[in-house]
Amino acid sequence: MSPSAIPQQPQGTAPVATFMKDDEPKVKLVLNQFRCLIADLCQQFNGGHPGSAMGMAAIGIALWKYVMRYSPNNPSFFNRDRFVLSNGHTCLFQYTFLHLTGYKDMTLEQLKSYHSARYDSICPGHPEIEIEGIEVTTGPLGQGVANAVGLAMATKSLAATYNRPGFELINNTTWCMVGDACLQEGVALEAFQAAGHWRLNNLVVIYDNNQITCDGSVDMCNTEDINGKMRACGWNVIEIMDGCYDVEGIVKALLNAKRSRDKPTFVNIRTVIGIGSKVAGDAKAHGAAYGSDDVRSIKQAFGMNPDEHFVVHDEVYSYFADIKPRGDALEREWNSLLLAYGERHGQAHSELRLRMEGKFPKDWRSIIPTRENFSSQPMAFRASAGAICNPLSANLTNFMVGTADLSPSVSMTWENKLDFQHPGLETECGINGNYSGRYIHYGIREHAMAAIANGLAAFSKGTILPVTSTFFMFYIYAAPAVRMGALQGLQTIHIATHDSIGTGEDGPTHQPVALAQLYRAMPNILYIRPCDTEETAGAFIAALEARDTPTIISLSRQKLPQYLEHSCRDGVQKGAYVLIEERDADVTLLGVGAEMCFAVETRVVLREKFGIKARVVSFPCQRLFEVQPLAYKRDVLRYQSHAPRVIIEAYAVHGWERYADAGYTMASFGKSLPGKEAYKYFGFDETVIAPEVAKLVADVKEHGVESLRGEFRDLNPIKGHH
Amino acid sequence: MSPSAIPQQPQGTAPVATFMKDDEPKVKLVLNQFRCLIADLCQQFNGGHPGSAMGMAAIGIALWKYVMRYSPNNPSFFNRDRFVLSNGHTCLFQYTFLHLTGYKDMTLEQLKSYHSARYDSICPGHPEIEIEGIEVTTGPLGQGVANAVGLAMATKSLAATYNRPGFELINNTTWCMVGDACLQEGVALEAFQAAGHWRLNNLVVIYDNNQITCDGSVDMCNTEDINGKMRACGWNVIEIMDGCYDVEGIVKALLNAKRSRDKPTFVNIRTVIGIGSKVAGDAKAHGAAYGSDDVRSIKQAFGMNPDEHFVVHDEVYSYFADIKPRGDALEREWNSLLLAYGERHGQAHSELRLRMEGKFPKDWRSIIPTRENFSSQPMAFRASAGAICNPLSANLTNFMVGTADLSPSVSMTWENKLDFQHPGLETECGINGNYSGRYIHYGIREHAMAAIANGLAAFSKGTILPVTSTFFMFYIYAAPAVRMGALQGLQTIHIATHDSIGTGEDGPTHQPVALAQLYRAMPNILYIRPCDTEETAGAFIAALEARDTPTIISLSRQKLPQYLEHSCRDGVQKGAYVLIEERDADVTLLGVGAEMCFAVETRVVLREKFGIKARVVSFPCQRLFEVQPLAYKRDVLRYQSHAPRVIIEAYAVHGWERYADAGYTMASFGKSLPGKEAYKYFGFDETVIAPEVAKLVADVKEHGVESLRGEFRDLNPIKGHH
Repeated sequence: MSPSAIPQQPQGTAPVATFMKDDEPKVKLVLNQFRCLIADLCQQFNGGHPGSAMGMAAIGIALWKYVMRYSPNNPSFFNRDRFVLSNGHTCLFQYTFLHLTGYKDMTLEQLKSYHSARYDSICPGHPEIEIEGIEVTTGPLGQGVANAVGLAMATKSLAATYNRPGFELINNTTWCMVGDACLQEGVALEAFQAAGHWRLNNLVVIYDNNQITCDGSVDMCNTEDINGKMRACGWNVIEIMDGCYDVEGIVKALLNAKRSRDKPTFVNIRTVIGIGSKVAGDAKAHGAAYGSDDVRSIKQAFGMNPDEHFVVHDEVYSYFADIKPRGDALEREWNSLLLAYGERHGQAHSELRLRMEGKFPKDWRSIIPTRENFSSQPMAFRASAGAICNPLSANLTNFMVGTADLSPSVSMTWENKLDFQHPGLETECGINGNYSGRYIHYGIREHAMAAIANGLAAFSKGTILPVTSTFFMFYIYAAPAVRMGALQGLQTIHIATHDSIGTGEDGPTHQPVALAQLYRAMPNILYIRPCDTEETAGAFIAALEARDTPTIISLSRQKLPQYLEHSCRDGVQKGAYVLIEERDADVTLLGVGAEMCFAVETRVVLREKFGIKARVVSFPCQRLFEVQPLAYKRDVLRYQSHAPRVIIEAYAVHGWERYADAGYTMASFGKSLPGKEAYKYFGFDETVIAPEVAKLVADVKEHGVESLRGEFRDLNPIKGHH
Repeated sequence: MSPSAIPQQPQGTAPVATFMKDDEPKVKLVLNQFRCLIADLCQQFNGGHPGSAMGMAAIGIALWKYVMRYSPNNPSFFNRDRFVLSNGHTCLFQYTFLHLTGYKDMTLEQLKSYHSARYDSICPGHPEIEIEGIEVTTGPLGQGVANAVGLAMATKSLAATYNRPGFELINNTTWCMVGDACLQEGVALEAFQAAGHWRLNNLVVIYDNNQITCDGSVDMCNTEDINGKMRACGWNVIEIMDGCYDVEGIVKALLNAKRSRDKPTFVNIRTVIGIGSKVAGDAKAHGAAYGSDDVRSIKQAFGMNPDEHFVVHDEVYSYFADIKPRGDALEREWNSLLLAYGERHGQAHSELRLRMEGKFPKDWRSIIPTRENFSSQPMAFRASAGAICNPLSANLTNFMVGTADLSPSVSMTWENKLDFQHPGLETECGINGNYSGRYIHYGIREHAMAAIANGLAAFSKGTILPVTSTFFMFYIYAAPAVRMGALQGLQTIHIATHDSIGTGEDGPTHQPVALAQLYRAMPNILYIRPCDTEETAGAFIAALEARDTPTIISLSRQKLPQYLEHSCRDGVQKGAYVLIEERDADVTLLGVGAEMCFAVETRVVLREKFGIKARVVSFPCQRLFEVQPLAYKRDVLRYQSHAPRVIIEAYAVHGWERYADAGYTMASFGKSLPGKEAYKYFGFDETVIAPEVAKLVADVKEHGVESLRGEFRDLNPIKGHH
C-alpha cells in the first residue's frame, strides 16, 4: 500500500480531557479571574486590547484544557497541535493561557510586562514567533488564516509521506482564531477558498463573533451571510450561541470539528467583547484600557476583590495542573511510536528524522548543476531557474513548490512532479494528485500563496522549504506576507519571473520599476537579480544557505546572453564582484540581472567609439554585498579611485546612490512594447548609454572626481525626472 | 423631499436596442468575423491573449449593441455606462468593440498595432485609461472589480446628491467583466463583500466562466460554489449556459440585472475559451497565438476565407452603425435634461457643473487653516491632519473620505459627517447613512479601499476626490492599488497614520521601516512626511494641487513638538527647505516627519556639548525636491560645502544616499515598546546621535569632505548592518 493511498483518517478525535459536570464551578472561577486579569494587564499601562481577550476566555479554556494536544514542557513537540491567533491584537488571550498551562518563560511577571518599557518582555503587542508556544507572528489581519492553512497543509503533506498503517505519526490539528476583521481581509478570503478546495479537515477556524470592529458594529461594513459563504467555500460550519460561558458546548463543537472527514471547519461562536465591562458589546471595549473605575466594577461583577490586582488563585493553577504531565505523556507516547516506526520503516524514518532536524535528506550542493552543464546560448533566466531548481525539487522532499497559476511561465515544474491535492479530486474531476504531492497550484492568490508558504515554513524549522512563484510584479500583491516571512526569519524562496520592463507587451501594469526598492530596503530578505544561469545557480546557493531569511530570485522573461566566462556563483554570495576587470579603468559600470547586457555592450562601445576603458561589476544583491568586509567593497567598487561608478538598471534608481555616482535608470512607469523595444523606448541601448557615460567621464576628467560628491547624476535623458 | 430620501430607482431599464429575431444571422456573422479577427491579431506578432476574447464575443455584442448606454462620439459623456475589463489581458475584446462601434481613434490599423513595436499604439497588452473608451487601467487581476465598485458608488453618490424628482440626471450602470482569476484574488473578494453590503444595484459583474486558467482546469485550484457564495455576499445571481452564442439570452440577463432593486448582480456565463480553435476549452487557448494552421482552420470553421486576414465585412460595420447616432441622441437628451434641471435647481446645478469640470465648489485654499490657528503645543500629526482635512471634507462635496476601520485612530471624521450607506440599513439595523453620505466605512479591506478609491476618482476627472486612511503599515496591503492609482494619474489622498517605530506597543508587525522606500521610488506619487501641523497643511496643499497624482501623507501616532517658528507650508511644496539656518555650519542634519525632533535636539547637543554648529533641513518629500532647480537644491543641501549631510530617520536608509553623506537610520525591523522607548532602543536619542555625528564631523575635518565620496556612512551603532 503506497503511503498516499492510506485512507485519510480524521485527526485523533479523543478529547485530551473530558469535560465533567464537576468542572463547572472551576470553569466559572477561571473565567472570572482570567477576565479580571486581562482588565488589570491593560489598565496597568493604560493601553492594549482587553475586549476580545475577555470575550474569548471560554474558547481558550475549551482549547487549552480540553481539546488541544501540546506539551508546555516542550513547546516544539513535533506532532503538537498548532494554534494561530490571527486576530493577533488579542495576544493577552494567548499569553495568559500559556502562563496558566505552564509554559515556563511565561511567568505572571512577564504577563505584567505587556505594554511596558521592558526590553526583555515576551509579551509584545502582537504574538511573535520567537516566544515559546507561539507558532507564527500575527497582527497584520487575515494573514494568520493563510498561515494556518499552510500549517495544516504541512501536516497533510508529512502524514501522506511518512504515516504508515499502524503508524499515524503525524496527525495534529491546526486551530486558528479569527475576529470579524480577518473575515474581511482578502488574504483570508483567498485562504478560505483554497483550504476548502484542499479539503483540509485538520484545520479548524474559530470565529470570535462579537460583531464589533474599531468603527463600531460590523453591520456598518459587512452584512453578508458568513455561514452560507463558508459552506459555499467548501467548509463545514458549526454555530455556538453562548460563547462567553458555554465551555462544554464549545468543547463539543471543537471535537466535532476534528471529526470532519473531508472539510475544514468554521466554528462561529457568538461572544461579547469586553464582557463584564461597562462598555461591553461596544467598540469602546476593543482597543483601550477600561479605566480604574470600570476595572473595579468588572472585578465586582466577577466576584473578585476590586482592591486586588493581577490575582490568580491556586484553584485556577491547579485546574490547569494536569496539562504538563498530560503533555509529557503525549510526547512519550509519540516518541515510542517513532521508535517502533524506525524499526519497521527504517528508510522513511531516517528521512523524517533528518527533516525534523531541519536538514535536507540529500546534499543539495551536489544537485545544483555546475557551470559546465550550462549552455552558452542565450537563455531566459526563468528557464535558468528551472534548470537549477527542478532537480532540487525532484530530489529534496523538503521542497514544496508552488505557483499562483503561472506554471507554464515560471518553469518550476519537474518531471513526474505530483500535485498537492485532495485525493478525492481524481475520481470527481480527473485532477491528479494527493497530499503527498509537493507541487502546489495556489490559484490566482499571490497574497495567500506567500502567507501559506510562511505557514509551511513555520511548521517546524527546516522541515519544509516552500518555493513560491509568480511574476515579480505580483509580489506586490504578496508583499505583506513576504514581509512577515522576513520578520519571522522563515526560509522561503520566491521565484519572481518577468522582472523589469523587458517583460514587454503586457505593459506598464506588469512591468515592475519600483518594487525592488521595497525588497532591497526590507530587513532580513535577499533580493537577488542574477545576470545569467551561473549567477542563478549562485542565487539558489545563497537562498539555500539563508536558513533564517527568505530570498527573492528575480528573473527575466526574455532570452539573454550568458557570461559564463566571467560570471561566478561564488561572486553572488558576496553580493557584487568584478565581472570584467580593466586596469586603469576610466569608469566602473554596475550591471544587474537582465540589464547586464547593457553594461557589457556599453563597455564595448565606450572602448571602440570613445577610447574609454570601462570595467564591469555584476551586482546581483545589495544586502549580501553590504555585509562584506570594507576592503572587499573598496576593491570591487574602487571607492577611492578617479573612476566614477555608473549603475545601469531599468528600475528606479533609489538606493543605488550608495554604490554609484551616476545612474542610467528608469524615472517613470513602463510601456507596452515588445521587450527589446521597451528597453529602446526608455533609452536602454548601448549606443545611447555610451555617449552619456562618456560625457560623465569627460566631466570628471575636467572637474575631478570630487565634483561628484553629493550630486548624483541621472544620465538617462529619457524622462529623466522623478 | 430631501435628495437622499428619493427612493432608489432601478437604473433605466429600457434596452437601448431590442434584440429582434432578424438580428440572428447578423449576430452570427459578427461572432464569426470577430473571432477570426482576434485570432489574426494574435497570430500577426505571435503573441497575446486570444482565447477569452473569442469566448466572450457574444457577451460583447449583448453589451455594446443592446445594453450599454454610451456615446462613441463623446467617450466622456458624463452619464455613460461604465465598462471595466477586470480580466484585462482579454483587451482585444474591448479594443475590437471600440473599433466596431466607432470610437474614432480605434481604427483597424490601430487594432493591428497590438503587440507591435509601434510607439503610438493605443492597443497595449492591457487596457489603459488614456485610451478613449477605457475607464480604468486593468491587468493586475481582481482590482477591476474594486474599481467597478468605486465607479458604481460614484454614481450612487452623485445621484443621491443631485438627482431630483423628475430629474434622474445620474443613473448609469457599471458593467464589469471578470474571468476565473478575478474570483480568486483577495481584492475582488473584499470588493464583492463590500458591494453586497452597499447593495449597489447599479453594478453588474459578468463572469466569463470558461473554467480555464493558465495552469489548466479551474478545478485544480478552486472548487467552490461560486453562485452560492455570491448570494451569501448579498448578490443577485443569474446564470447563462450558452454564453458563446446565446446573445438574446445574455441581453435578457443583463437587462434583468439592471432591474435589480437592491442588490448588485453577478451574471455567471458559461463560455468556451478559444472557441473554434483546435485547443478550444484548453489552457493552451489562453495566452498564445494559435499558429497559422489553427488560424486557418478557425476561419474555415467560422465560414471565413482562410487566406484573408483582418477581415471585417461591411455588414458587420453596418450592424453597429446605429450606435453612434444612438449615442449622440442619448447625449442630446441628457443635455436637455441638464438644462431644464439648471432652470429648476440652479444651485445644485451650479455645483454639479463645477464638479463635472473637475473643480471644487469652494476655494479650498481659504479652507485650510493658517499657521496662526495652530497650537504650539505638542500634537499627534494624525490629529494635525484631522484639523486640516476635516474642514475640507465638510465643505467640499468632492471629498469622499473613508477608512479601513480605523475611524477612532485616523482622525478623519468631521462634525455631522454622514456615512455612505444603503438607506435601508437604518431601519434594518440602526446604521445611519445613505448614498449621499461622504464618509465610507470600507471595512478591514485596505486593498479594496485603495482600488475602490481609484474607481471613485476615475468616474470623471476631479468630480470626486477620494481620501483613504489606515495605518501606514497597512498601505502595504493596499500597495497594488495605490500603485495603479499612480500609474493612472488618479488624484487620491491616502492618510497614512502611525508611521515609523514611534507607533510603539503594537510592535514590529505594525511598525513600517521599509515601506516608504517603495513609495519614494514609485513614479507619479508623492510620499510626504510632515514634521508638524504647519507642514501637514503644506502636505495637503501639495496633495490638492497634484491633480494627476496620488499623495500619501504619512503621519505620527504620537504627540510631537511643533516648529511653527521655523516650519513652512510653502517649503513643503519644494520637498525640502532649511528649517534652522546656521552660518558656517559644520554639518547639515536632514530631519523628516516624526523624527524631526531628533534632528532639532541633536543640533542643540552638538552645539552645547561638542561646539559643533549644525543646520537643520526639513525634508518631507523627495519627489517634490527632485524637481526643484539645481540652484535651489544646492542652496538647501550645500552640496559643495565642507559640511557633511546626515539624514536622521527611523526607516531603512535606502534612497537617502542621494542627499546625504551619512545616515542615522534603521537596519532592522522594529520592536514592541512604548513609542519613546522604541526610539531609544534603536538609538534614536539626541544624546546618542550627537556623539556619532560629532565623530563624523571630526573625521571630515581630518580627512576632508572628499573622503566621503562614494562611501556612505551608517552612523547608528544599533544593529548597524543591513
